[in-house]
Amino acid sequence: MSETASIRGRDVVSLNTFSSDEIRAVIARARRLKEEGYDSPLQGRSLAMVFFDPSLRTRASFAIAFSTLGGSVIDMVAGRDLWPLEMREGAVMDDIADEHVIDAARVLSEYADVIGIRALARGGPWGRERRDRVLVSFQKHAQVPIFNMESVLDHPCQAWGDALTLDEALGDLRGKRLALTWCYHPKARPLAVPHSVSVMAAKMGMHLTVASPDGYPLDHGVQSALSHAAALSGGSVQHVENLEEAVEDADVVYAASWSSLDLHDRPAEERALRNRFRDRRVTTELMGRTNDARFMHAMPIRRNVEADDAVVDADGSLVLAQAGNRLHVQRALFQDVLGV
Amino acid sequence: MSETASIRGRDVVSLNTFSSDEIRAVIARARRLKEEGYDSPLQGRSLAMVFFDPSLRTRASFAIAFSTLGGSVIDMVAGRDLWPLEMREGAVMDDIADEHVIDAARVLSEYADVIGIRALARGGPWGRERRDRVLVSFQKHAQVPIFNMESVLDHPCQAWGDALTLDEALGDLRGKRLALTWCYHPKARPLAVPHSVSVMAAKMGMHLTVASPDGYPLDHGVQSALSHAAALSGGSVQHVENLEEAVEDADVVYAASWSSLDLHDRPAEERALRNRFRDRRVTTELMGRTNDARFMHAMPIRRNVEADDAVVDADGSLVLAQAGNRLHVQRALFQDVLGV
Amino acid sequence: MSETASIRGRDVVSLNTFSSDEIRAVIARARRLKEEGYDSPLQGRSLAMVFFDPSLRTRASFAIAFSTLGGSVIDMVAGRDLWPLEMREGAVMDDIADEHVIDAARVLSEYADVIGIRALARGGPWGRERRDRVLVSFQKHAQVPIFNMESVLDHPCQAWGDALTLDEALGDLRGKRLALTWCYHPKARPLAVPHSVSVMAAKMGMHLTVASPDGYPLDHGVQSALSHAAALSGGSVQHVENLEEAVEDADVVYAASWSSLDLHDRPAEERALRNRFRDRRVTTELMGRTNDARFMHAMPIRRNVEADDAVVDADGSLVLAQAGNRLHVQRALFQDVLGV
Repeated sequence: MSETASIRGRDVVSLNTFSSDEIRAVIARARRLKEEGYDSPLQGRSLAMVFFDPSLRTRASFAIAFSTLGGSVIDMVAGRDLWPLEMREGAVMDDIADEHVIDAARVLSEYADVIGIRALARGGPWGRERRDRVLVSFQKHAQVPIFNMESVLDHPCQAWGDALTLDEALGDLRGKRLALTWCYHPKARPLAVPHSVSVMAAKMGMHLTVASPDGYPLDHGVQSALSHAAALSGGSVQHVENLEEAVEDADVVYAASWSSLDLHDRPAEERALRNRFRDRRVTTELMGRTNDARFMHAMPIRRNVEADDAVVDADGSLVLAQAGNRLHVQRALFQDVLGV
Repeated sequence: MSETASIRGRDVVSLNTFSSDEIRAVIARARRLKEEGYDSPLQGRSLAMVFFDPSLRTRASFAIAFSTLGGSVIDMVAGRDLWPLEMREGAVMDDIADEHVIDAARVLSEYADVIGIRALARGGPWGRERRDRVLVSFQKHAQVPIFNMESVLDHPCQAWGDALTLDEALGDLRGKRLALTWCYHPKARPLAVPHSVSVMAAKMGMHLTVASPDGYPLDHGVQSALSHAAALSGGSVQHVENLEEAVEDADVVYAASWSSLDLHDRPAEERALRNRFRDRRVTTELMGRTNDARFMHAMPIRRNVEADDAVVDADGSLVLAQAGNRLHVQRALFQDVLGV
Repeated sequence: MSETASIRGRDVVSLNTFSSDEIRAVIARARRLKEEGYDSPLQGRSLAMVFFDPSLRTRASFAIAFSTLGGSVIDMVAGRDLWPLEMREGAVMDDIADEHVIDAARVLSEYADVIGIRALARGGPWGRERRDRVLVSFQKHAQVPIFNMESVLDHPCQAWGDALTLDEALGDLRGKRLALTWCYHPKARPLAVPHSVSVMAAKMGMHLTVASPDGYPLDHGVQSALSHAAALSGGSVQHVENLEEAVEDADVVYAASWSSLDLHDRPAEERALRNRFRDRRVTTELMGRTNDARFMHAMPIRRNVEADDAVVDADGSLVLAQAGNRLHVQRALFQDVLGV
């Protein structure tokens, strides 16, 4: 089966729906595009990006990847360019929602060959937020492939770019050790990055250690997916609390911060719990305990809070390569999904 | 005379300024583009869209049509990207307006080959709003063709897309019966869609029935234009109040909602009047009284308030085709107006 | 040395960093592009525009110039698309700034071949504002050429377009007389335009007279640069208060308004001082004292406050040509800086 054929026409909403081979095939195409350059295969095609939340890296990398391949991009901001959307099927729409997501998704499908959606959590209870209602609604009603530009649960394009970065830095990832380390951040951060990075590591056959304080687990559904993926790939997944323990012999330290799930809709309590871990960050000393590990972060990064300047700017830091590779992975993904 | 030559260089601000043959020629070109595809004839050309009000369908269809033909698009939002504009000629500009519309229109004409303007009513008395001051000011001072992306009075590109949709669904429109049915909506809606759809029906030689409650007429100037257009085209125009009467034997039921003109600047009174018609919507039962009519709506649609889900999602519903055809008509219009 | 080679890869942040010959070479290329048309040399290249302040002319001319040459453009608005940026190096980022300018600049350099920055003053003391912290930070950390789309101190692309306009209108500028006349404006306006226009005049060998009331000097650093540039080019620079005196025998009257530097952070006092000059504007009578001078203004212009309609709309007025020429100069600059 050709690389292109395998994911043509598919939604890109989570790495969970792609096999390890499919993930590797996209990485291989991205490396070729990066080395050999590209032409204008998307001429006459269009991408509609719909933002329910702001974005720098994702917006820039999606838009530039699509348009430098010759395609057209429109960028819609919900609440500014889009009417308030009704999500409940069968609703009598006599309230504030001016348009049903059914219609918004179908209309955009008439105009665009691909639709990107960014919709983060709104501060509700995790049990409700984790259903990823906006993304799932667009996925259900759109007639063209949907790209997840970060949802409540997942951020597959970030993780795909990270996989390319690791592939360039470390070669074959099977058996390599990645420590995903919860660090302090002044705000309760989304779960999508830690989820998608964990799934990527498990799919790639890495030994993943998630290091987070009590009260900061990953989503239970993601945890099940991780165990399943690791079993298939020959990797492993473990959880520890202690940072030092987590990074011992690690080949990669991936710093992130995320909200407590139990306290997801109780910000004051969440903050009080989080504030107990103010000093939890990646330092040069911590990096000294690793197997000369590379440092990763999805950005934006709080310097000297999540990780020290000396770590972020060290030779072994991959943070800039991660950001840059999002562009190259995006070019490969658009071509593969559109079959060009 | 070639199709292209006939409308080259002209403003697209209302269907009133185009002959029935010119309207049909654009539809024919749109059908060919839709079937045969398109190239990049707008390479090096640019479209400046200026939004005084938000937009989904119009913004997306204008931007994607222009750019997939190879052109460049910029999108300016008044109050964000544009300075507050002075509209009065000769004004001593010592108040809040930072720039005169004379200068904004002329400068944009230096940068763009086409300018699109969206400017809806601001809640003033209808007698003042109907002058369409923003659109008319840009039309007066711009040196390049102006496209109306919906003004107080008119929305020609919506109606042109609707004409393409009807042409595909019903063939020759002469003698066909279109019922434009006022339905309840929780908000007082603009007049531009009912106006432009009515003009389109009259220009196409259809028998138009406008069905609206007492207090919800169309603009008197539009009514005069309708009579004139129908007389020329062999169509007819009548007004009734009753929904059931209006749709009897109709080939097309076009649902819309619009504000009372007399109460245009008195929202509380308008709302009280409108609320008396809360149950006025298109149901399956109502559609049963027609000549197996197709259902149309310009969207966004309030499902189960303006029309029931069963009507919107029925096989005979054209709502999605309408939205999609805006893209194809737009491609034809840009090429014809730019003469490429 | 070829024209292109001379400025390839350089930042365009001020005319101060370009020689008179380099400025003239870009003007010559712009005139050729304007006459002979252009192709798609920027295909596959991208421009990221970052706006900390709104913009019409600059945004439109940058975006259309880059994209009509085949390139891709993204447009980021700080505070909407960008996280709040930390500017202090080594900062412990536990406050509101979510991202460091180091990282924002480096990441954008991964995505874009050119970065444009607009960042005006924030109402602080002039001694602090004049450091142009945002622009300088991006310039320091970006890995690709930075274009100043107007900063606190400078607006080089405006002045470069003005130089093209004067070149077309007057031919060789050496020895021609330009009067930069401070006029009343209801708001305290930025300094960037008067600064960059002055530098341009001095670099081009013009005799520059800056006419402003007591309390409205140009920045002292700019004044030094002017003297230096004029000495090199054979031009001259003088300052007067009186409007009538300033325009005597002028070939060009360039109207502008700007804030008092001493009162830059004291808006009430600045306003009181400025209000003493309410009647200071360019009239037909004033133009009668000149050497049949051309009238210029960078727009947006307050008609009948800064200059009378009869002056702005006179045959000799260059205001529209100035705006239009920004597009042509921009096309030349992008090609020269990118070396294509």
